[in-house]
Amino acid sequence: MGPHPAVAAVRAAVRPGLTGPVLVACSGGADSLALAAAIAFEAPRAGVPAGAVTVDHGLQAGSADRAAATADLLRGLGLAPVVVATVRVGTAGGPEAAARDARYAALTAAAQEHGARVALGHTRDDQAETVLLGLGRGSGPRSLAGMPARRGPLWRPLLGLDRATTRAACTAQGLPVWDDPHNTDPAFTRVRLRTEVLPLLEEVLGGGVAAALARTAAMAREDADALDALARVPDPTDCSALAALPAAIRRRAVRNWLLGSGVRDLAAVHLQAVDALVVAWRGQGRVDLPGGAGVVRASGRLALQGPPPPLSTPRSEEPHP
Amino acid sequence: MGPHPAVAAVRAAVRPGLTGPVLVACSGGADSLALAAAIAFEAPRAGVPAGAVTVDHGLQAGSADRAAATADLLRGLGLAPVVVATVRVGTAGGPEAAARDARYAALTAAAQEHGARVALGHTRDDQAETVLLGLGRGSGPRSLAGMPARRGPLWRPLLGLDRATTRAACTAQGLPVWDDPHNTDPAFTRVRLRTEVLPLLEEVLGGGVAAALARTAAMAREDADALDALARVPDPTDCSALAALPAAIRRRAVRNWLLGSGVRDLAAVHLQAVDALVVAWRGQGRVDLPGGAGVVRASGRLALQGPPPPLSTPRSEEPHP
Repeated sequence: MGPHPAVAAVRAAVRPGLTGPVLVACSGGADSLALAAAIAFEAPRAGVPAGAVTVDHGLQAGSADRAAATADLLRGLGLAPVVVATVRVGTAGGPEAAARDARYAALTAAAQEHGARVALGHTRDDQAETVLLGLGRGSGPRSLAGMPARRGPLWRPLLGLDRATTRAACTAQGLPVWDDPHNTDPAFTRVRLRTEVLPLLEEVLGGGVAAALARTAAMAREDADALDALARVPDPTDCSALAALPAAIRRRAVRNWLLGSGVRDLAAVHLQAVDALVVAWRGQGRVDLPGGAGVVRASGRLALQGPPPPLSTPRSEEPHP
Repeated sequence: MGPHPAVAAVRAAVRPGLTGPVLVACSGGADSLALAAAIAFEAPRAGVPAGAVTVDHGLQAGSADRAAATADLLRGLGLAPVVVATVRVGTAGGPEAAARDARYAALTAAAQEHGARVALGHTRDDQAETVLLGLGRGSGPRSLAGMPARRGPLWRPLLGLDRATTRAACTAQGLPVWDDPHNTDPAFTRVRLRTEVLPLLEEVLGGGVAAALARTAAMAREDADALDALARVPDPTDCSALAALPAAIRRRAVRNWLLGSGVRDLAAVHLQAVDALVVAWRGQGRVDLPGGAGVVRASGRLALQGPPPPLSTPRSEEPHP
């Protein structure tokens, strides 16, 4: 008799990616626990070392005990080493963003230290929530692209599965799932998207919304990648060369030039104003940018003026792994 | 004393586009009535002829009287000619789609007959609903692009304004707004998006959602236009040439080839399977497509087999103008 279909589905999702050392990021929740169990099962068969890392955010009473219990469970699955990473959560960008930033910094450090990729348990449902968050920002197709299956040391093998499958896999294997109270706290935007907005959208649009959002994310990512590649022009300050490009590519070239020069927090209005220097030139003055910098056009070229703001860490948009 | 700010905003939105004869499509609702009043005011100042067309869908008791009353109101605004187009609504694609198809056919015919553009009263709120509908289909960034400000004879000058502005403009001018009962009937998906989903999203995401969706639509349109232009390759059946393209462009080239060959209702799974013939070739067989056609790879080329399904009218996704 084979494994339960949900267990088989999670194992099948991780199998093709087990090509080198891996650490499973595990909170003890259903998604990451199902992932840990699947990797613990498949990694020896693939001949790759597999450990785990659990992050203690220090935000809830008893979080250290919680992390220790999760680490014991992970060791019991046969994963080694099992690392408990204790982080200090700051306040920048609000509580969700600060916890995420601290977590990803710890995971990336663990990846580096152990020469391993970090496997994250995000599912199609997480991806749908991420796309809706991006939609709400309105910062363009790249913000709809959601979380990539791979980026740097991060690997998300479960983006094609739904949360019901990971939970069923845990149940079928008798794994004790920890339900983080944060995951049902309506103070968090993501929780309300999950518990209120997505169920209503499913009802109104007749189902399949999470899958549709995930497909949209995948296609938006492909599109954005193709356009970003095309926007690598030799000189992004040459107005006549820029003006010859399609609008979508021209604006990316300008945006990438500004980002590369240290300008942050660019909004659509800034890019539109700089674009007007290129394609609607009538002698207009400097375009002010966030942080005190500005762009002028002189002798057919764009020039950045004023102090670019200090570089800040780009913020990832991923939920709790 | 100048006009009410809402009246001024609607007039400012139509002014730059009044470059030739125009017919205002008007249902008698707030959006299209505010549009009609603004064009009636601005067109003589711009020296362009402006008439109107109102569509009688014949779906509600008294619809002919309703259309006649709207036509009288439009004549009273000084628009001429005022055309009442009576249409027969079919059943294909459901009641909303059938009514829309009939309406757009009538509007396009009126545009042709009068050598005029047709101005439609869609606002930023309509655009937001259209983007959400596209998102629910999950058919990719093009479906997020919403309604264009211009396409063929159709012109939508109010996409930058919200519904509150058009209603305020009607009130300020004492215009009798007709509230179509269809616009509040929860049997319609769009009505539920408007009255339930969007208000909840606004609350959860902290406001500005309609504007964010409209910005996303504009950027998605630009991206899709750029990629579609790049996907016009000399031979979309040459597998080695296709394989050299970025994924986003390759898939568009294949999709456009199939659409141009009469294949309809292509879903992401079909395109992925055809794409695998190009980039993951291992001798696999025919990829079945909707309507009985199929694609095979032979001698390094894609070939369409079987009867392409009969051409159906491409369906527009615009709401009631």
